Amino acid sequence: MDSTQFDRDTAVTRRAPGVYAADLSADWTVFGVVNGGYLLALLGRALGDALPHPHPFSVSAHYLAPSLPGPAVIRTETVRTGRTLSTGQASLFQCAQDGTETERIRVLATYGDLDALPDDVRTSAKPPEIPPYEHCLGPADAPAPLPGSAEITRILDLRLDPATVGWAVGAPSGKGEIRGWFGLADGRDPDPLSLLLTVDALPPTAFDLGLAGWTPTVELTVHVRARPAPGPLRVSITTRNLAGGFLEEDAEVWDAADRLVAQSRQLARALRRP
Amino acid sequence: MDSTQFDRDTAVTRRAPGVYAADLSADWTVFGVVNGGYLLALLGRALGDALPHPHPFSVSAHYLAPSLPGPAVIRTETVRTGRTLSTGQASLFQCAQDGTETERIRVLATYGDLDALPDDVRTSAKPPEIPPYEHCLGPADAPAPLPGSAEITRILDLRLDPATVGWAVGAPSGKGEIRGWFGLADGRDPDPLSLLLTVDALPPTAFDLGLAGWTPTVELTVHVRARPAPGPLRVSITTRNLAGGFLEEDAEVWDAADRLVAQSRQLARALRRP
Repeated sequence: MDSTQFDRDTAVTRRAPGVYAADLSADWTVFGVVNGGYLLALLGRALGDALPHPHPFSVSAHYLAPSLPGPAVIRTETVRTGRTLSTGQASLFQCAQDGTETERIRVLATYGDLDALPDDVRTSAKPPEIPPYEHCLGPADAPAPLPGSAEITRILDLRLDPATVGWAVGAPSGKGEIRGWFGLADGRDPDPLSLLLTVDALPPTAFDLGLAGWTPTVELTVHVRARPAPGPLRVSITTRNLAGGFLEEDAEVWDAADRLVAQSRQLARALRRP
Repeated sequence: MDSTQFDRDTAVTRRAPGVYAADLSADWTVFGVVNGGYLLALLGRALGDALPHPHPFSVSAHYLAPSLPGPAVIRTETVRTGRTLSTGQASLFQCAQDGTETERIRVLATYGDLDALPDDVRTSAKPPEIPPYEHCLGPADAPAPLPGSAEITRILDLRLDPATVGWAVGAPSGKGEIRGWFGLADGRDPDPLSLLLTVDALPPTAFDLGLAGWTPTVELTVHVRARPAPGPLRVSITTRNLAGGFLEEDAEVWDAADRLVAQSRQLARALRRP
């Protein structure tokens, strides 16, 4: 497992009970800032070690300041342990240039064991309708470097539904939806931990809404609903309400077996380009 | 303001910097357990006092153990203060019979000032279609005491869409949706704080899915998107995916001016009746 880039880059080293050292890789950045989904996966790995249950069921993250590539410390706290579920807290810190430690992100998370759940599924949710992978578009298909182009696009295998990439040629649909196929470029299969990355790895819906500027995440909560089957994932992200300079972005992740494996919602700020 | 029951029952008394005493009222219980939305409002009030910004923008709560009527202590921590947003954490503790303190619920929350936001709204979300208030049904309309009947129903002015109350006469729709009008029985108008109650105050969607047993909340995150106009609110709650014994429940709250004022999602467990 640890031979994949995702596993190497989300590795954490236990320094003391509940305290982990990490190194944020520059490969997971967008415009120099570390991707929020990658941060969630890092914190999720630390909590998976600190808590008695292995899988994230619900992770709520409040983003405090941008994270940069380089060393970081993750401090965890076990809040409650139960038979079926346990709850923990984790914060990621980095040192500023003057040596003071700054908290970048804090999460509350409830963990469980997906493999111990019964098999019952009753759902009215349907997978997003996305054209076959080979008819979808990746960064290499863009006429010019995309506004969303970034280091991270090289290590993801992301192919977007052509109906949702008008923004790349100056014609956003205005609907606030982006859909596509998601994988890791090195072929690593999805697991509960990598889903924490997946929910925040597409270009923002703000592009499809035609917004200039960027939309930093204020808060993101993800529910992992099932262990994903091997193979490519389908992801849809949608925004329904942009108001007062804030928008929500909902993500759904479906696995190769047509199962809804993760749901997330984030609140983001719509900032104008400086 | 403090003459309304909601304001009296969510009052907190500062005992030390960041530490508040509260008294959980038995009027906000369901089957003897304190309602989760009322708890959110209590914690939200403490954080509104502790943080430099007045209004909850995003509150993420992880429920650790049931809360009971009686005294409680809320401990808050200011995590980060910024110009536009500040982030805090709060926990509610109660003493067990042996005198040991137990943490019941922990929240991470980001606060801001709704009145300082620009007026722009771009939304594709539409209010739920609900018959007029006088055509909707309250607890007094039930042929027999409802399974959801509880102390809390006396202080809420809740009128449900007849299309979503089949469960009260043994005929749940199976769709996983409940819609209705929401107010406080004493006529208190909604405000950003009371929205924290509103998102978790309807009977659970599990009733409409025909589930026996109860569905305790594991995690709930609410986004307050605008200050609500005076007057009744419309609320819809929906569940799309019940799997492995867990379900999500999404709530939307609309005000009398047809504005989407709050969105929430919770992860709950579907427990069989013992």
